[in-house]
Amino acid sequence: MIAYLNGDFLPVEKITISPDDRGFQFADGLYEAMRAYGGVLFRADEHLDRLAYGARQLQFARHDFTTVKSIFVELLRRNSLENKDALIYMQVTRGVAERTHAFPPADTPLTIYIRVKFFSGWPDELQNGIKVISVPDKRWSQCHLKTTGLLANILAHQQARESGAAEAIFIRDGFITEGSHSNVFVVKDKKLITPPLSDYLLAGITRQAVLEIASGLKIDVREVAIPASDLEDADEVFITGTTVEITPVVHVNGKNVRHGRPGELTIQLQKEFNLLK
Amino acid sequence: MIAYLNGDFLPVEKITISPDDRGFQFADGLYEAMRAYGGVLFRADEHLDRLAYGARQLQFARHDFTTVKSIFVELLRRNSLENKDALIYMQVTRGVAERTHAFPPADTPLTIYIRVKFFSGWPDELQNGIKVISVPDKRWSQCHLKTTGLLANILAHQQARESGAAEAIFIRDGFITEGSHSNVFVVKDKKLITPPLSDYLLAGITRQAVLEIASGLKIDVREVAIPASDLEDADEVFITGTTVEITPVVHVNGKNVRHGRPGELTIQLQKEFNLLK
Repeated sequence: MIAYLNGDFLPVEKITISPDDRGFQFADGLYEAMRAYGGVLFRADEHLDRLAYGARQLQFARHDFTTVKSIFVELLRRNSLENKDALIYMQVTRGVAERTHAFPPADTPLTIYIRVKFFSGWPDELQNGIKVISVPDKRWSQCHLKTTGLLANILAHQQARESGAAEAIFIRDGFITEGSHSNVFVVKDKKLITPPLSDYLLAGITRQAVLEIASGLKIDVREVAIPASDLEDADEVFITGTTVEITPVVHVNGKNVRHGRPGELTIQLQKEFNLLK
Repeated sequence: MIAYLNGDFLPVEKITISPDDRGFQFADGLYEAMRAYGGVLFRADEHLDRLAYGARQLQFARHDFTTVKSIFVELLRRNSLENKDALIYMQVTRGVAERTHAFPPADTPLTIYIRVKFFSGWPDELQNGIKVISVPDKRWSQCHLKTTGLLANILAHQQARESGAAEAIFIRDGFITEGSHSNVFVVKDKKLITPPLSDYLLAGITRQAVLEIASGLKIDVREVAIPASDLEDADEVFITGTTVEITPVVHVNGKNVRHGRPGELTIQLQKEFNLLK
């Protein structure tokens, strides 16, 4: 597997990070995960726009990553994935500097690391749905930034896995924010509901795609706060994200969502989403 | 400079971290910073106990780091610091694994990185005091764990530096929690006050030393919540921490603390602390 670091294409086992990288010592970094379907990048511009937004918010030295797309294409080619389904992971940190909380000199080069792998999604979960649990949202209050400080997400996700679930849904002040690596939608009385964008959740690319699809289908969409209890009382629940796409949730905190099968609207949205890929 | 990584003593420029290290991709790691005064480790057991506590909380594969002290001593020796003042930095991550939120297999070796450098403190700040600003505490709700997810601390500290201050004091729900890399004490009507331990702040080793000293001096100590406004109304303010020791705060949010000079009790505590070193 060939990966990319700061201008070089190298076998991934030869890629090394300095222990003084601020990504390693401070989680002073951002990331994106993107899909390629049959070798074609999916909404890469939107991922790179979000990365640029994060870089501006964190006052990184570089805010434009549009040229990076050619690196994605080159990495897919070098790994014989140019016609395949793949997952692209990109991480950008504030670079290497002597350890101190204050920013390093402005001319410190960012660390840019990109790798790709074959990935075709999880068909069983897409078809049959998943179990989730809800957990208190212990994360920081800047979850709209896609930073590498993911320990709270890890601990929540691990808790879900240990309880036989596939995802943890965060609850903050009694309301749903998002999953440990996904956004959340519920369907209630034919209405499609998802929490509004705020500092407490990520503006998911797949979330946005679902809103566009629903709008095209004239579905009644509401971006409003969802009480935690609605997760168990909904007619349908699903999560969205780059890896999970639109994954039905059939079981919440040990109880079935309705009849414990993927809902009608969820399946309709999945079909429409597949047409976009 | 010789540093340590996973059993090897190497020139620091030869030490490399895998881009798949969970410390780099997830901030799935803990750290400690310790002092040596004249080559003698200061309260290293307490630092290593705290590290072990964090490792248990995060379900790391190893929870006992007492043997690491001999590595500190060896690193000081190899860097000709065995009789000098030094700062020791130790970072432990959940190790190297393919990127996924769930924990890697339990036998995945932790990454253990340690480096030392000559460090003798900041005499000017200790003597003359510093300016601080207060900022909203946007961090996660598990700040009692000394994890490497420090981005909120970095942003707060940078904001302080850019406003001419040396530290940022976090305010959560109207009350002081701690500084971006320090604990906070105020003196009011001869009482020494610091926020009680909770999930929102670190159990600082220097904080504990100050409480012990104050107890020995029969000072009236209160571990109670401190409203943000008390930061500006106090008779004295100081911060504590491994690098800052006991540093007087003489200026808060653009206003002098009392007469803008280090307070009497602060200076007394500094003197007693110096006797411990």
